[in-house]
Amino acid sequence: MITLEHCQARDASDELAAFRSQFDLPAGTIYLDGNSLGAMPKDAMAHANHVIEQEWGRDLINSWNKADWWGLPTRLGDLLAPLIGAGKGECVVTDTTSLNLFKAVANAVRIQRSRHPERRVIVAERDAFPTDLYMIQGLLQSFAEGYRLELIEGADALAAAVDANTAVVVLSHVNYRSGYLFDMRAVNDLVHGRGALIVWDLCHSVGAVPIDVSATQSDFAIGCTYKYLNGGPGSPAFLWANPKHQAEFWQPLSGWWGHARPFQMESDYAAHPGIRSFLCGTQPIVSLSLVACGLDIFRQTDMQKVRRKSLALTDLFIALVAQECAAHGLTLVTPTEHAYRGSHVSFRHPDGYAVVQALIARGVIGDYREPEVMRFGVTPLYLSFADIWHAVQHLKAVLDRREWDQPKFRARGHVT
Amino acid sequence: MITLEHCQARDASDELAAFRSQFDLPAGTIYLDGNSLGAMPKDAMAHANHVIEQEWGRDLINSWNKADWWGLPTRLGDLLAPLIGAGKGECVVTDTTSLNLFKAVANAVRIQRSRHPERRVIVAERDAFPTDLYMIQGLLQSFAEGYRLELIEGADALAAAVDANTAVVVLSHVNYRSGYLFDMRAVNDLVHGRGALIVWDLCHSVGAVPIDVSATQSDFAIGCTYKYLNGGPGSPAFLWANPKHQAEFWQPLSGWWGHARPFQMESDYAAHPGIRSFLCGTQPIVSLSLVACGLDIFRQTDMQKVRRKSLALTDLFIALVAQECAAHGLTLVTPTEHAYRGSHVSFRHPDGYAVVQALIARGVIGDYREPEVMRFGVTPLYLSFADIWHAVQHLKAVLDRREWDQPKFRARGHVT
Repeated sequence: MITLEHCQARDASDELAAFRSQFDLPAGTIYLDGNSLGAMPKDAMAHANHVIEQEWGRDLINSWNKADWWGLPTRLGDLLAPLIGAGKGECVVTDTTSLNLFKAVANAVRIQRSRHPERRVIVAERDAFPTDLYMIQGLLQSFAEGYRLELIEGADALAAAVDANTAVVVLSHVNYRSGYLFDMRAVNDLVHGRGALIVWDLCHSVGAVPIDVSATQSDFAIGCTYKYLNGGPGSPAFLWANPKHQAEFWQPLSGWWGHARPFQMESDYAAHPGIRSFLCGTQPIVSLSLVACGLDIFRQTDMQKVRRKSLALTDLFIALVAQECAAHGLTLVTPTEHAYRGSHVSFRHPDGYAVVQALIARGVIGDYREPEVMRFGVTPLYLSFADIWHAVQHLKAVLDRREWDQPKFRARGHVT
Repeated sequence: MITLEHCQARDASDELAAFRSQFDLPAGTIYLDGNSLGAMPKDAMAHANHVIEQEWGRDLINSWNKADWWGLPTRLGDLLAPLIGAGKGECVVTDTTSLNLFKAVANAVRIQRSRHPERRVIVAERDAFPTDLYMIQGLLQSFAEGYRLELIEGADALAAAVDANTAVVVLSHVNYRSGYLFDMRAVNDLVHGRGALIVWDLCHSVGAVPIDVSATQSDFAIGCTYKYLNGGPGSPAFLWANPKHQAEFWQPLSGWWGHARPFQMESDYAAHPGIRSFLCGTQPIVSLSLVACGLDIFRQTDMQKVRRKSLALTDLFIALVAQECAAHGLTLVTPTEHAYRGSHVSFRHPDGYAVVQALIARGVIGDYREPEVMRFGVTPLYLSFADIWHAVQHLKAVLDRREWDQPKFRARGHVT
């Protein structure tokens, strides 16, 4: 029997407990949606002040040099790199996840086109975050004409799907809905063993689980900075490309920021030889700058510690739901095995949408994903064991009292 | 003979003079680079505070609904629309200029491919802002394979270049270097008369000259918000598409924000039927939100008044340089005829780079563009006639005393 006291005792010995003070969280809220929009680092406002009042307002155009706005995508890329096991100069923060996926898949397809033109299939999961599939579909209508997208149903179907026709495999490291975590090394070995290339979407794993794109010999990886990395709403995304492909780096969104000599105003595009070639147009400097605040917090710890607490919190969440809410027919969607679990916990419930709205009304912020999935994100840097206890108590109350069964909670007015 | 008193008298009767108080400009600076990075509206910091502390920090994920982050691209598009003669629901603010140009040209090529598959040439100016050409080149390697880019030398070459092989013409309304302004209506008539489509880059004309994309029957237009519109460094760009093409709207960067039902999590892309189909990935909300501050200022006046003062200021600049600096061999690059002049004035000088650096050291911020071009942007909402007088006095001093002829000014350390 787990008790509140038990949770409080674990908080007392939590080596990451002090990190919570670096975030500004609203009073009376248990925020279990950091996997959708990370909480605000306390430094964010001062940082924005500096960028807006000093760099924009005072220094104006000179900030391109003085504040090195020009170098921001690579500087932030270097700051982020340790979180994914990448080296210096291998990563850029720029544009959106969707666009970076487009670039990475386009590059992977092009490499395969020159090596194995007979391989014409892109393999992805039907349950991928939809924008990944949409971007691949856009690519199929443009650069990758003649290729086709094969959607697999569930992780178990991967091994059978990757074969001599496969050019590129695109996978979410952690599934946005179920929280299923792929074994990156095993997948890479499988994919490479069959002659294909891999593009990883790290949106739901970066800052949530330890990642080593280099040691596992991934080919490309992209992800966002506004979830576990706390970069701010819609903050620009990142792209990593394995340096072993450098001679073949290419992407069709060839804007001036990716040019080898952008200030020579040449009329022909000539890609920068390195990771900068994945840059395109002028970046939103205020939003981009804020990415540093979240990354600065991660620099003070390491992902092994974050992972230990993440698993302890998700274990606790699962155990408490079993203990407190057994009567209510919640189905755990997230893997129980640690090796396959990311940092969020999802349950199916026929009225999951309304239950989530009733929880939000109580200050417990989770979210809902079609179909029937209630999703609770666990962010070890600003959540406590007691938070999980209280969240499950609210869930129990909502279910015991059928609080969710009201028109205001059933009405589908919410977009996220 | 123009005098300072004459300039001051014009300031006294300037109907736009009061707008300067809505901008935060550094003391001791004459800012002639608003055509590169617009000055900061005084509201910007308070606006950023609200978005960061309230919307992100307090309301967190709920801001997608409560603050309608989801509607920002179209809401800002509607706010911007009057500045280009567009209607409600015809414009989005999203992504970067480079990406929006890619989308617009891809759409135009696709329309022509179905109507006139034999037309395989994209016409653009060699002197276009280079990223426009780079993006077209990327498109040629991907979606528009089989097409070729024909670069014309100067505006006069346009009429001869557009013919039965032309699919799409891509032009900068105002040239970023010379300040040359195309006659939009005449060009559209020419291009359409010969069966081609037009894509306008409005980066250096939006907020600088009156524009009517609807009355002139343009096909597509894109542009940035961080120059004359004062949206903040690298703030997201806009895209307008003529509703007459709505049935054929299409672009390959098909991310979830452009989906007809983005929250249904469907695995197949289905484009929104309207202008939203030009959206792609999650936008940088802080930078995007700040675009409203500059647009709110423009709503208080109209582009005819802005244009009148712009021409008066550029006339004054040109006349004063002729009067004060005649001995120094500056060559005016900008058209003297009003009908063909944007809102910046450019001069060639063999040591233009060093002259600009010496001016910056005196607090007169212009910029330099290869080859030899000194560029001075005129922004009627925050520049006075006396500013122009003083700027030219500084220029005269720099030239008279050969202040520019120092290693520190000749050294090419600057990136913009």
